[in-house]
Amino acid sequence: MALLVQKYGGTSVGTIERIHRVAERVAQSHRAGDQVVVVLSAMSGETDRLIKLAHEASATPDDREMDMLLSTGERVTVALLAMDLRSRGLNARSYTGRQVGIITNSVHTKARIARVSADRLREALAKGIIPVVAGFQGINEQSDVTTLGRGGSDLSAVALAAALKADRCVIFTDVDGVYTSDPNVVPAARRIDKISYEEMLEMASLGAKVLQARSVEFAAKFNVPVEVNSSFKEGKGTLVTREDADMEAVAVAGVTGDRNQAKITMVGVPDKPGIAAKIFGPVAQANINVDMIIQNVSQDALTDLSFTVPRADLRAATPLLQAVANDVGARSVAITEAIAKVSLIGVGMRSHSGVAAKMFEVLSREGVNIMMISTSEIKISCVIAEKYLELAMRSLHTAFGLDRVVQGEQSAK
Amino acid sequence: MALLVQKYGGTSVGTIERIHRVAERVAQSHRAGDQVVVVLSAMSGETDRLIKLAHEASATPDDREMDMLLSTGERVTVALLAMDLRSRGLNARSYTGRQVGIITNSVHTKARIARVSADRLREALAKGIIPVVAGFQGINEQSDVTTLGRGGSDLSAVALAAALKADRCVIFTDVDGVYTSDPNVVPAARRIDKISYEEMLEMASLGAKVLQARSVEFAAKFNVPVEVNSSFKEGKGTLVTREDADMEAVAVAGVTGDRNQAKITMVGVPDKPGIAAKIFGPVAQANINVDMIIQNVSQDALTDLSFTVPRADLRAATPLLQAVANDVGARSVAITEAIAKVSLIGVGMRSHSGVAAKMFEVLSREGVNIMMISTSEIKISCVIAEKYLELAMRSLHTAFGLDRVVQGEQSAK
Repeated sequence: MALLVQKYGGTSVGTIERIHRVAERVAQSHRAGDQVVVVLSAMSGETDRLIKLAHEASATPDDREMDMLLSTGERVTVALLAMDLRSRGLNARSYTGRQVGIITNSVHTKARIARVSADRLREALAKGIIPVVAGFQGINEQSDVTTLGRGGSDLSAVALAAALKADRCVIFTDVDGVYTSDPNVVPAARRIDKISYEEMLEMASLGAKVLQARSVEFAAKFNVPVEVNSSFKEGKGTLVTREDADMEAVAVAGVTGDRNQAKITMVGVPDKPGIAAKIFGPVAQANINVDMIIQNVSQDALTDLSFTVPRADLRAATPLLQAVANDVGARSVAITEAIAKVSLIGVGMRSHSGVAAKMFEVLSREGVNIMMISTSEIKISCVIAEKYLELAMRSLHTAFGLDRVVQGEQSAK
Repeated sequence: MALLVQKYGGTSVGTIERIHRVAERVAQSHRAGDQVVVVLSAMSGETDRLIKLAHEASATPDDREMDMLLSTGERVTVALLAMDLRSRGLNARSYTGRQVGIITNSVHTKARIARVSADRLREALAKGIIPVVAGFQGINEQSDVTTLGRGGSDLSAVALAAALKADRCVIFTDVDGVYTSDPNVVPAARRIDKISYEEMLEMASLGAKVLQARSVEFAAKFNVPVEVNSSFKEGKGTLVTREDADMEAVAVAGVTGDRNQAKITMVGVPDKPGIAAKIFGPVAQANINVDMIIQNVSQDALTDLSFTVPRADLRAATPLLQAVANDVGARSVAITEAIAKVSLIGVGMRSHSGVAAKMFEVLSREGVNIMMISTSEIKISCVIAEKYLELAMRSLHTAFGLDRVVQGEQSAK
């Protein structure tokens, strides 16, 4: 008998029909002899409906009141699922974030979990109850309702799994796992059976939107095995877990692409100490997130400084950077929007040498020029022209042996 | 500076536009120097929407889960109003039933208030905060959400007013007060300035749906002055308060009519001890509420027994009563649906004699036959043929001097 925390997202509980399907799945796990704790999001669309009402009520809705408002969405779904389960003869009970003891700080709309008592959950499980818990929410020390930010229900599930020392936290979503690459770009991408927390974090922050990044950090900290699986079909998912020997055997676990970047180059910057601070101070103050930074070799005491920012911030950054350029005596500011970032991720890089060299070689063979490079212990990223992103991702995916073996898959069907 | 509890019903907060109007009214009271505690219902229609979802989720939704579900409606409106008030520069804060310490028993969907701490409300008021409280809800000793039944927000408001020793509890609704009779039936009906708790209770239970009956009982018990007023126009309302000399000076405060009754007569019942128990035992067991009972003078050891039941229960009662009639050896069962009950209500009846006699005389003069009569200390009710109800109500209203003085009203405009 295993103790499972099962989290279902907004699309999985978006209609009564889908709630029935979730109930059927929970009942199955229960019949199979597992103890189940269910964590739910609000019905898809409900949070947006409430946010719209809030903006009609006030041009700048107060954050504490926003949390009071938004926390209702999950209460509706947990009550409905508990009703459904009970009418199937199962002893289910709904609980709010408060009732299961999720205590957060007071940063409304993006609160951080301070501690989880889970006492009432333990009691409920001991009595054979199937607890159905409202995700996304907690209370602060003043007993006010707080919410954990978009995707916060993943975090609720992982935090409860950690507190209960659950055997596994299963995140049911609209995809059946984490893929070696985005299947929309790389058709040969395949589902990964097992991935480390670190790799998952890099995947998450690079645009694979399967799991909220903070919930992965939390899972890593408390060593909670997290499974990502589909709520719409039966089958294996991806297990996110502690790094093991299997994972290190593979140099590259996944290839990601990110089109949401733009490149800015300050041309002809006088190469003097303190110049970087003068440039990046104002940018940071404007809350613009700089990703990569590259400084060219200095010629005639002048240098070129290139960096990337989220494309959405470009409009805000441009006038600011023109001013900064004047200030530091740079010759000009060049902006390139049509760039993309292709990255290889894998804990195996630590022990496999030559991954970077092979990446550059593959890109060069395909005629893709590399504008910028950045590396970490388990990741290599290259900025390239956007038009080459698909080509680069597919070529790297094949070159590093990630392509799905079509023959094997067919025979397995 | 007065301390006011203001309660706004579902129609008053049914749209964002109407929530803006409520905010304006609250702001007005605040500017006038009063301390205001606001209690809100859910947006009109929202409770029905949620109940519909519940019945889609389960044929027989669990009561505890129903409370979890329904309690979200008021949380939405309090958050929205608090946002609105804050964007007007007022320090408003929303609170749930739990947060203001409304503790109830565990009878889900119709819980009774056990106690109200209101500590957090007192603190909030001391800090100059305008509290906006979710009506209709509390928590039980297990910290589970409970609801107080339809119309329960009135009760929340009165209970908080009692706990805070507020100067007044104002119930804003879609009518501007309590009337001497139903204005749809008696056009000359006029708004009553002041009415006693007892009279209000009789009016409420006889069909004047302005105030939930339990909230009137609660107000009487803790002597909370309750004002019923319109949320859509400015002006005086009706004050429900302790009986005083003014009220006793008037013999009749109001005339009510009730069409929701049916009359059942058991003809030729053997007049033996224990016969009434044999008849009304099964009726009570079937949860059918008997109102008036009349037993005729016995002739030849046979008697006729008439009683009234809610018309909605007639279908359930009929086969049951046929069986009972056979059992006790009654000759037949006669059912009359087209009856109505007309009542006079007034604490002045205690000191004014002849009210009943005058009532009978008025009805007789209009040719209205009286089928049944029942009296209490402050009420006389007659069952008559339904077709005479309007005639009876108008004639009695005029005869007891309740008609609006049209001249005076016009000159006051």
